[in-house]
Amino acid sequence: MIPRYSRPEMVSIWSPETKFRIWFEIEAYACDALAELGVIPKEAAKTIWDKGGKATFDIARIDEIERETKHDVIAFLTHLAEIVGPDARFVHQGMTSSDVLDTCFNIQLMRATDLLLKDMDALLAALKRRAFEHKDTVCIGRSHGIHAEPVTFGLKMAQAYAEFDRCRARLAAAREEIATCAISGAVGTFANIDPRIEEHVAASMGLKPEPVSTQVIPRDRHAMYFATLGVIASSIERLATEIRHLQRTEVLEAEEYFSKGQKGSSAMPHKRNPVLTENLTGLARMVRSYAMPAMENVALWHERDISHSSVERMIGPDATVTLDFALARLTGVVENLVVYPERMIGNMDRLGGLVHSQRILLALTQAGVSREDAYRLVQRNAMKVWESYQTSGNAEVDFLDSLLADKDVRAALSEEEIRSRFNLDYHTKQVDTIFKRVFGDS
Amino acid sequence: MIPRYSRPEMVSIWSPETKFRIWFEIEAYACDALAELGVIPKEAAKTIWDKGGKATFDIARIDEIERETKHDVIAFLTHLAEIVGPDARFVHQGMTSSDVLDTCFNIQLMRATDLLLKDMDALLAALKRRAFEHKDTVCIGRSHGIHAEPVTFGLKMAQAYAEFDRCRARLAAAREEIATCAISGAVGTFANIDPRIEEHVAASMGLKPEPVSTQVIPRDRHAMYFATLGVIASSIERLATEIRHLQRTEVLEAEEYFSKGQKGSSAMPHKRNPVLTENLTGLARMVRSYAMPAMENVALWHERDISHSSVERMIGPDATVTLDFALARLTGVVENLVVYPERMIGNMDRLGGLVHSQRILLALTQAGVSREDAYRLVQRNAMKVWESYQTSGNAEVDFLDSLLADKDVRAALSEEEIRSRFNLDYHTKQVDTIFKRVFGDS
Amino acid sequence: MIPRYSRPEMVSIWSPETKFRIWFEIEAYACDALAELGVIPKEAAKTIWDKGGKATFDIARIDEIERETKHDVIAFLTHLAEIVGPDARFVHQGMTSSDVLDTCFNIQLMRATDLLLKDMDALLAALKRRAFEHKDTVCIGRSHGIHAEPVTFGLKMAQAYAEFDRCRARLAAAREEIATCAISGAVGTFANIDPRIEEHVAASMGLKPEPVSTQVIPRDRHAMYFATLGVIASSIERLATEIRHLQRTEVLEAEEYFSKGQKGSSAMPHKRNPVLTENLTGLARMVRSYAMPAMENVALWHERDISHSSVERMIGPDATVTLDFALARLTGVVENLVVYPERMIGNMDRLGGLVHSQRILLALTQAGVSREDAYRLVQRNAMKVWESYQTSGNAEVDFLDSLLADKDVRAALSEEEIRSRFNLDYHTKQVDTIFKRVFGDS
Amino acid sequence: MIPRYSRPEMVSIWSPETKFRIWFEIEAYACDALAELGVIPKEAAKTIWDKGGKATFDIARIDEIERETKHDVIAFLTHLAEIVGPDARFVHQGMTSSDVLDTCFNIQLMRATDLLLKDMDALLAALKRRAFEHKDTVCIGRSHGIHAEPVTFGLKMAQAYAEFDRCRARLAAAREEIATCAISGAVGTFANIDPRIEEHVAASMGLKPEPVSTQVIPRDRHAMYFATLGVIASSIERLATEIRHLQRTEVLEAEEYFSKGQKGSSAMPHKRNPVLTENLTGLARMVRSYAMPAMENVALWHERDISHSSVERMIGPDATVTLDFALARLTGVVENLVVYPERMIGNMDRLGGLVHSQRILLALTQAGVSREDAYRLVQRNAMKVWESYQTSGNAEVDFLDSLLADKDVRAALSEEEIRSRFNLDYHTKQVDTIFKRVFGDS
Repeated sequence: MIPRYSRPEMVSIWSPETKFRIWFEIEAYACDALAELGVIPKEAAKTIWDKGGKATFDIARIDEIERETKHDVIAFLTHLAEIVGPDARFVHQGMTSSDVLDTCFNIQLMRATDLLLKDMDALLAALKRRAFEHKDTVCIGRSHGIHAEPVTFGLKMAQAYAEFDRCRARLAAAREEIATCAISGAVGTFANIDPRIEEHVAASMGLKPEPVSTQVIPRDRHAMYFATLGVIASSIERLATEIRHLQRTEVLEAEEYFSKGQKGSSAMPHKRNPVLTENLTGLARMVRSYAMPAMENVALWHERDISHSSVERMIGPDATVTLDFALARLTGVVENLVVYPERMIGNMDRLGGLVHSQRILLALTQAGVSREDAYRLVQRNAMKVWESYQTSGNAEVDFLDSLLADKDVRAALSEEEIRSRFNLDYHTKQVDTIFKRVFGDS
Repeated sequence: MIPRYSRPEMVSIWSPETKFRIWFEIEAYACDALAELGVIPKEAAKTIWDKGGKATFDIARIDEIERETKHDVIAFLTHLAEIVGPDARFVHQGMTSSDVLDTCFNIQLMRATDLLLKDMDALLAALKRRAFEHKDTVCIGRSHGIHAEPVTFGLKMAQAYAEFDRCRARLAAAREEIATCAISGAVGTFANIDPRIEEHVAASMGLKPEPVSTQVIPRDRHAMYFATLGVIASSIERLATEIRHLQRTEVLEAEEYFSKGQKGSSAMPHKRNPVLTENLTGLARMVRSYAMPAMENVALWHERDISHSSVERMIGPDATVTLDFALARLTGVVENLVVYPERMIGNMDRLGGLVHSQRILLALTQAGVSREDAYRLVQRNAMKVWESYQTSGNAEVDFLDSLLADKDVRAALSEEEIRSRFNLDYHTKQVDTIFKRVFGDS
Repeated sequence: MIPRYSRPEMVSIWSPETKFRIWFEIEAYACDALAELGVIPKEAAKTIWDKGGKATFDIARIDEIERETKHDVIAFLTHLAEIVGPDARFVHQGMTSSDVLDTCFNIQLMRATDLLLKDMDALLAALKRRAFEHKDTVCIGRSHGIHAEPVTFGLKMAQAYAEFDRCRARLAAAREEIATCAISGAVGTFANIDPRIEEHVAASMGLKPEPVSTQVIPRDRHAMYFATLGVIASSIERLATEIRHLQRTEVLEAEEYFSKGQKGSSAMPHKRNPVLTENLTGLARMVRSYAMPAMENVALWHERDISHSSVERMIGPDATVTLDFALARLTGVVENLVVYPERMIGNMDRLGGLVHSQRILLALTQAGVSREDAYRLVQRNAMKVWESYQTSGNAEVDFLDSLLADKDVRAALSEEEIRSRFNLDYHTKQVDTIFKRVFGDS
Repeated sequence: MIPRYSRPEMVSIWSPETKFRIWFEIEAYACDALAELGVIPKEAAKTIWDKGGKATFDIARIDEIERETKHDVIAFLTHLAEIVGPDARFVHQGMTSSDVLDTCFNIQLMRATDLLLKDMDALLAALKRRAFEHKDTVCIGRSHGIHAEPVTFGLKMAQAYAEFDRCRARLAAAREEIATCAISGAVGTFANIDPRIEEHVAASMGLKPEPVSTQVIPRDRHAMYFATLGVIASSIERLATEIRHLQRTEVLEAEEYFSKGQKGSSAMPHKRNPVLTENLTGLARMVRSYAMPAMENVALWHERDISHSSVERMIGPDATVTLDFALARLTGVVENLVVYPERMIGNMDRLGGLVHSQRILLALTQAGVSREDAYRLVQRNAMKVWESYQTSGNAEVDFLDSLLADKDVRAALSEEEIRSRFNLDYHTKQVDTIFKRVFGDS
């Protein structure tokens, strides 16, 4: 997480101010429940809310206390006592630091996920808009980077939509994973704190009680959470890579929006580079990398150790802030992407009709030619076209002409039968079906 | 995947025999649907099932053809034509290799997952049995590897049960991710094959149609699948680590079952080593590592490239076979684990009652002592006990005696009030509640 | 490691036969040294070599014994005793299993590395040959996938040569890391075995003694080894990616060799796909992934545990066999790569001379125009060319013509001064210098 | 990189101030060389040093320009022009942004590595001191967490010393990897800039010229660099894990220093937790994780793309700052580690002499008993001892007594022969030899 790749709303979730506010709320809600059970006086609970609820916690002061005690929660509680006065002794009764830390971390992750879900919705909306805008914009589909058969640019967007829609569902599931609360005391036995306290705090903060914690909330939950972010990052990388490919000079079927004052290169003024999607590729690598330490965090020793803490202090903010930034950046790229339909047709045409080769193959087979012979017949004509393309960069031999002149082909297919296989509509006839699968009847 | 860490049922899912049988079924079901739509003759579809359905595919012959064509699906189809005869020309109409390969891979993963789910059920059953068996077997809970407060061994098992129950749900979700079928032809447009073929094949093989494929099934699905296996592996590592800790000489609260003829060390005959759980720790590292290349596989170029293929040829079998073996091994370890309740009490007792320190802290606070003073009072007595433990390995100063002799403590608490904090039942009183959360009313 | 991506010489290093032969040699050399020191009879050492040296170890028998003892080295020693007779009791005196296992593993890695170094030499030779062949074959250099300025294809090969030359040096350093021998007995203290035994075995097997082992050879060595393989794999990915880019339809400046019978696509007969380099991209992901478990293996518990063993049983063969295969495949790709110099020029020319933009920028600056003004002047002409390229896929506006017609440009530069900046030689004038840096005076 | 785990000297290497200062120096040294070659006026070079050398770069101003130009180097150069005046047009002649960025990044890494090397020296010094201090402090060696045979605490430190000494050498090699300079202009051809400029800048900044760059310095260098840091982190994890094990309650052979005001637990005042080494375990996971994106950065497209940049903006500081902090923290832990020699003996004695089992095994073999019989004899006595340990936590059966009473043992060995195998000196007799191997004759 560095300012360059951060957005303020997500950053603020991870600020000390937010953290201490959440700590306070956990403690104060716990006091409410303790008071309700008669463990502490109701007035004490009220005083805690009254004084702490409007206090601004002094972060420098808390840091100062922590330097002495080397314990962050004790430092906070000591500072809270300075604010609340004698009733502070009722705070944190029967609780342990992890109750506060783990529940707080999960709340931060939950809030971060809510932002990410909003980001995802914006991205999905942009993809959907561009998908319908270019539903019928024909371009070549490529396998292995090689021209294959026609698709539409809208289909590319629909594919991305479907992929990010899955990512959204995964993110929602990941949110469920970490939306739990533990107020179970030392080693998680509830010996010193009634389970009803946990239930109350959980309900108040929008969480579910952790069925069995061992002082800590089990870290398989967080491993699953960060692994899910890594998968989402990989989908970002996929779409970013697609755009980088489309923008490369020889293809140039789409371009990132290039604003007025922007400079592509300090040395070469003509350049317009896909720097945003290249940047997204790098950010994806980072978010993905955080999955590994999160998985290594699972095997804490016995009821708990603290080795996960330093990891989470880093990857909690790093992963969510970076992913938030990346999703927003990708949304901007999609929204503003400049699409060149003429270049799409132009690129396809340079291959002299080769994209229709499979249809001829099928026509021959259907006309009774064995699959092996048909393949050979198509290949020998296709290779002539391809070789002329190879030489000049523009097919000077036309595939249709070549087929019409091939006696063996003509023995099986009439001119009309051949010509009828050279229309693009044939390839896009199921686009509506696919769109309906992806977007429903909207 | 090496024989040492493999079980035959899972291995057989990844055999060439199984693969070619699935390929055949995909092709044959597709022929049924093509015949139903009138694209190919119904007799042809029947012949294909009749001849192919009972044939044993000759793997050496297929390999031979592949060496020439350098294309595995064409090699198979050529061999199939040798078996089926002229009607073979109706096979694979409008389809592309990826339709077969990707759908087959997903079927293999789906079947592998079904085995893994069975493994998981066996593990859960073992954990549940041991949990109830030791529901009240008190042992010390440890945070940071340091004695904290009492738990029960059953709680440890219940925690593991809850964790693997989550893993089971994740596995089921991962199965959904990959249980899709694509028969969408070149670049996924259905130009040469009606979407109803896909629907029929999907339904026949227990899959759902992939809403939008691009010749390949999108690899974010597989990234999520293998990431999930990595998380499960991390949970295996956690439980294995727990057992390794419990078996170490100084702790020895539980031991892996050690069979008669087994030798622990070629040099030191007295040794019984936790080799199974150490082995599981290593296997977990492997399964976890496969998540990374699976995530890198997502960003295929344009409609597809083939870079994912070599990765999946390895991690498909490697991850599922290794995880299957690991789950079964862990189940055996849990089932046969030798538990030493006396040592659990013995270890706890060596600390002279220190485990009750928090209760005294709370008692003092409740008696009106400030939190800071209470902490100091408890700490000074606790440290005396601890230091005697440090010196001799057995607390010669008793915590209860020390507290009773501390005038400042006694100013706040009577002897009876102090003594009443030294019972173990206090710590286990919520075990039933937790068990109910984890296991329900069973 | 799967047969598809394996070569026999490397595979044989990891066979049980090789392993048991190495185990035998370690034990037998140790006996020589023990006999030399008078610990065991010289005749015994001789008998062991005589009988064991020509024996074929019965792997099925060893497996059978291991099933009972659950200990692989004891199983081997038991079988060895069956071969050698009573003198077998002198074998393994004072040694522990890890002495055999770890030393053997290092020998296998060392031999594997020797093969990898040979692979690397073959790759370097191929790169060097192609570099000199195409030293002056001009093609466009691309940054961000966008045409920048001219380079030569030979320079690309020289860059790869320099990179793999570094990889070779890293591999040689990695070999040093793991070329150590430990015969230090239980927990590595040499209590039961004289250090001179280790020195003798090390010298006999081409290793150095491990300065301090703790029964196991420390695994930081192996972490460094596998991390190095991961870096090499990443360099393979880089060159593979370059070739994939060059082969994509719109670029087509080079192609993997496509043999006669080969079929590119079961559906589209015209296709020639960069399948070898795509495959290498996937293999690189796998080799890279093994670095992570190797690093996790470092932190064994106390003097040792056995968690690293399962990891190494897998990644030892998997990483070296896969990398061996990948290096050989890459060498074949480089050797047989079909290069299209005309297309290189053709692609460059399609941009209407834009590649010369920086030279004009510099000329303007040198003629006294401020950097900011010069940038603006060049950019406005460049953008006209670029936009015509964008529309049609071929620059219809020529950059030279445009500049000559720009009054502000002409105010600073004469026609001759402008024209003189449009020669390609200018860009390649330092190629010899760079080649000398990379290849020396060869 | 977060303040909690950062040290100021390392942080300052990554500050904007340092970065812009390095950028300036690269540009200014390049101007010197350009002036020397007569490309720009010598006075201009002087002016640039005079004005820029004493200027404080206004970071807010540079950020402001970057927001418009979206290009960081152009923003800096524009600001530099504001400072230097008209002569600024001679700056950056023939160079490209990457020349500045990549050379600067390498300088930052080089300086960071110099700090890390100092950290490493401090750690090595601490380990050496503790190693000699405890050269003869006997403690039990453990394999699989199970008591094996005696070692000394000094040996543990010596092992760590040897491991970090290797890490130091790896770090020095990693420094060599990245200590290169590229001033090669667009796509690295030196078309617009003489290679002598690069040579001058390199020499002035303590670098070597990159033999062949492609506008960027090849990223295999950085992959190797960060992979090396990952290996070092894994060694940190190993030593941290050792200490965590030694501090666990049942072992308690060593403890992290616990300062006066420090609080171990907010709930349990008696606790002293190994929080520093647990923290180091987590930090190691983080540093290790950065190796993966660094390896993914290698395969930049063609001559370069910018996807590596975001990764390096994060892992450059994150990895070096975290490792610097971790090494310093580990050094502090080692220096202040509280060692309990009595507990080491105490723990060993609790097993009733079992640690001597192998010596008896050898004695029996040497007395002519077959290996298999000897193993059985030792095992049956050892198991009696072990079972009594298992029951009570203290061996009530003594191994020596048991052996003396075993008729079959006594048939082979006299009482004296048995007793003579029960001395600890036997196990430590090679400690000096090992120390000499590790530390030389120092």
